Amino acid sequence: MVSLTPNSSFSLTLRLEIPNRVGMLASVTGAIASSGGNLGQIDLIEQTRDFSIRDITVDAASTEHAETIVEAVKALPEIKVMEVYDRTFNLHRGGKISINSRIAIKSVSDLAMAYTPGVGRICTAIAQDPEQTYNLTIKQNTVAIVTDGSAVLGLGNLGPEAALPVMEGKAMLFKEFAGIDAFPICLATQDTQEIVETVKRIAPVFGGVNLEDIAAPRCFEIEKLLREQLDIPIFHDDQHGTAIVTLAALVNALKLVNKSIAEIKIVINGAGAAGVAIARLLKKAGAETIWMCDSKGILSTQRPDMTPEKLEFAIDKMGGLAAAMSGSDVFIGVSAPGVVTPEMVRSMAKDPIVFAMANPIPEIQPELVTNDVAVMATGRSDYPNQINNVLAFPGVFRGALDCRAKTITTTMYLEAAYAIASLVKPSDLNRQHIVPSVFDERVSVAVAGAVQRAARQEGIAGN
Amino acid sequence: MVSLTPNSSFSLTLRLEIPNRVGMLASVTGAIASSGGNLGQIDLIEQTRDFSIRDITVDAASTEHAETIVEAVKALPEIKVMEVYDRTFNLHRGGKISINSRIAIKSVSDLAMAYTPGVGRICTAIAQDPEQTYNLTIKQNTVAIVTDGSAVLGLGNLGPEAALPVMEGKAMLFKEFAGIDAFPICLATQDTQEIVETVKRIAPVFGGVNLEDIAAPRCFEIEKLLREQLDIPIFHDDQHGTAIVTLAALVNALKLVNKSIAEIKIVINGAGAAGVAIARLLKKAGAETIWMCDSKGILSTQRPDMTPEKLEFAIDKMGGLAAAMSGSDVFIGVSAPGVVTPEMVRSMAKDPIVFAMANPIPEIQPELVTNDVAVMATGRSDYPNQINNVLAFPGVFRGALDCRAKTITTTMYLEAAYAIASLVKPSDLNRQHIVPSVFDERVSVAVAGAVQRAARQEGIAGN
Repeated sequence: MVSLTPNSSFSLTLRLEIPNRVGMLASVTGAIASSGGNLGQIDLIEQTRDFSIRDITVDAASTEHAETIVEAVKALPEIKVMEVYDRTFNLHRGGKISINSRIAIKSVSDLAMAYTPGVGRICTAIAQDPEQTYNLTIKQNTVAIVTDGSAVLGLGNLGPEAALPVMEGKAMLFKEFAGIDAFPICLATQDTQEIVETVKRIAPVFGGVNLEDIAAPRCFEIEKLLREQLDIPIFHDDQHGTAIVTLAALVNALKLVNKSIAEIKIVINGAGAAGVAIARLLKKAGAETIWMCDSKGILSTQRPDMTPEKLEFAIDKMGGLAAAMSGSDVFIGVSAPGVVTPEMVRSMAKDPIVFAMANPIPEIQPELVTNDVAVMATGRSDYPNQINNVLAFPGVFRGALDCRAKTITTTMYLEAAYAIASLVKPSDLNRQHIVPSVFDERVSVAVAGAVQRAARQEGIAGN
Repeated sequence: MVSLTPNSSFSLTLRLEIPNRVGMLASVTGAIASSGGNLGQIDLIEQTRDFSIRDITVDAASTEHAETIVEAVKALPEIKVMEVYDRTFNLHRGGKISINSRIAIKSVSDLAMAYTPGVGRICTAIAQDPEQTYNLTIKQNTVAIVTDGSAVLGLGNLGPEAALPVMEGKAMLFKEFAGIDAFPICLATQDTQEIVETVKRIAPVFGGVNLEDIAAPRCFEIEKLLREQLDIPIFHDDQHGTAIVTLAALVNALKLVNKSIAEIKIVINGAGAAGVAIARLLKKAGAETIWMCDSKGILSTQRPDMTPEKLEFAIDKMGGLAAAMSGSDVFIGVSAPGVVTPEMVRSMAKDPIVFAMANPIPEIQPELVTNDVAVMATGRSDYPNQINNVLAFPGVFRGALDCRAKTITTTMYLEAAYAIASLVKPSDLNRQHIVPSVFDERVSVAVAGAVQRAARQEGIAGN
């Protein structure tokens, strides 16, 4: 049931020596196409009378698929495969972020102002008035991306080192989408108290903390304790980023089917960080009927294995996911690949809305139920309606930092979601377009504005 | 006794409206000069038939002096002071470093490689082979600059926030002089065990740790514990950076006076982090007679107030600094402004060498003993022979990171010092030129090379 289309995460560049004769390049592109590779850029590197050297970029669907493609090209007569690069690995060599000086240090006088002895006057000014930390240091624009590596993407407990590439990627997104300086903190501990202690101790440099890829239920406790003990914004993106974008998408999807959030039955599959946060935010947004499931079925007051977060949504019913989905208006999946069947979707109420957000492989492949759903969304960029956290977290922090919010509130989440939803104009809204593109430059500005407005209304803005 | 020359750390820019008549600009420059200000850049901002607007940059000697200069200009008839900027404060607004993406994120395909789903393959590769962290993440080039804010410059225990501008400045120097990505970690704790714990927990991201501005004797214990418990280089710059550059300067100064390090009597005033580390390194370099003093005089086995580090250098004599200096060949001050008198210098042996390195105001103003010393050095950039750590730490870390040294050793310190000393050619060596300029681009390369060579010889290089 699970099939994947070629995509850039398995992108190769083949450097080939190709004889200069009619049909030779065509034989290469033909071989790639018939083994299912997706041709990208073709660059001419060198050309002599007899042959050309070309770099051919190909997207594959998996590591095995990439090998099949390379073998198909190698099997061609007269074509020489000089090198094969894995573009994703190449891009990661040496890491993805750098720390740079904002001021050139070219003379003794630059040194005397930026470093000793001049910097001493700045230190003294901050010691006399700690609020100056926000004016005279990086704190005003700097966020810690904190993980313990216990829930890295959908890959599980890989530890802090293996989590670092994700945190670097996140730092890139913070910069690209909101101009924020973010630095990865990958902790060599998975103990709740130790994590909280450590983040508190390193907090002086940071204007905010983004928690990332920390397993449930530990993540709930860590966020709660840090919110109580620090006066800078704390935001667990896997929870609230996902919840904000899900609500934004749902708001627009409901417009298309003419249903109200208070009347619908919502099934959420997955009761980890994302599932719980989505359920909580949808409730705040007016949802009244939410059935949550985990891998063992409906969260039920009759089950003995409930955590406090699961009990919050437990109902007086037992059953599996199929039973839960029957007659429901909305399915939201933050669980595992392929757990939803076309039959389950067909058992839903009229005009069903399905958000199959398991990454990278959704709960159900969209093409299996194209004609059975009113709206389909996934976490993937190669299908319409990508529910991507990057629509939320850059703007949330931009807004919170700019107004020096002491904390982040549920009202901010709600306002951020409505701001995202509002960027899809009524005339553009359709079943393939319920959220703006992640490259829509209005998004982080709109979210930041909404967050600041909420902060001022709630009296938690510092300036 | 303590007087200061104007310098860039008290640099102002005055924006003035000056009538377009002969002698008007001269009246301004005259007023500045006669109030002791040092004229820098003069920029023409705007010019009409009647007047010019100019930005005039002036170095003052202190905040009070800066005010005197501004008052002198304000007192001039027909000259209008439009604005006064403090250049050092202006330069610090918003902080001095930024975190940037090394790769542009402009398309869905960039996102798919640098972030999800592509990054998942990188995480998996690291989880399977942790050594890949050095290839596929920022760890290979990233250093933590760790402080508890307990000994900020010569200013004392200002706390972690007020220390941040120094750490940002240090990060700038790491980048400028050695291409290293360094990030400030300012800790909200001054407890030795907590500091050690915290650094260990955040270590996965970092290829090395530079300890900075941590008070003695705590700094010795922290460095020792971290060296034992982490397998990345740990370097307390206030100790070893200072010691390396001091030894380099001493090696060259001794050539000028034709004395051997084994035969001379050295007095070190100041038994904090720098003093102890200098004494230890000079001993390794062959020094046999070192008398150390603290604010209470000679470190003596007869004194009851010795720490373990002080006892290491305690001798069976009592006395004050003056008594210690009498007949000595070398004075090294890492203590306090103005504690050495010309008489003390004149009591030294023939051809005395004086390194008065207290910052920003030396133990003795060089001009008071110009004709009494063979060689004089300070920590200041406005006198010859600046003993500046920036000659050492960038190259030390460049070398250690490049060969993936598991630790840093005394041999590395010695080799780094000899490398720095060797960059002053015999023909260039004179009493005003015993160390290379901090802007000499050969320095960090030479130090890095020496450190790598030492690491390979000692078998602690990781690649």
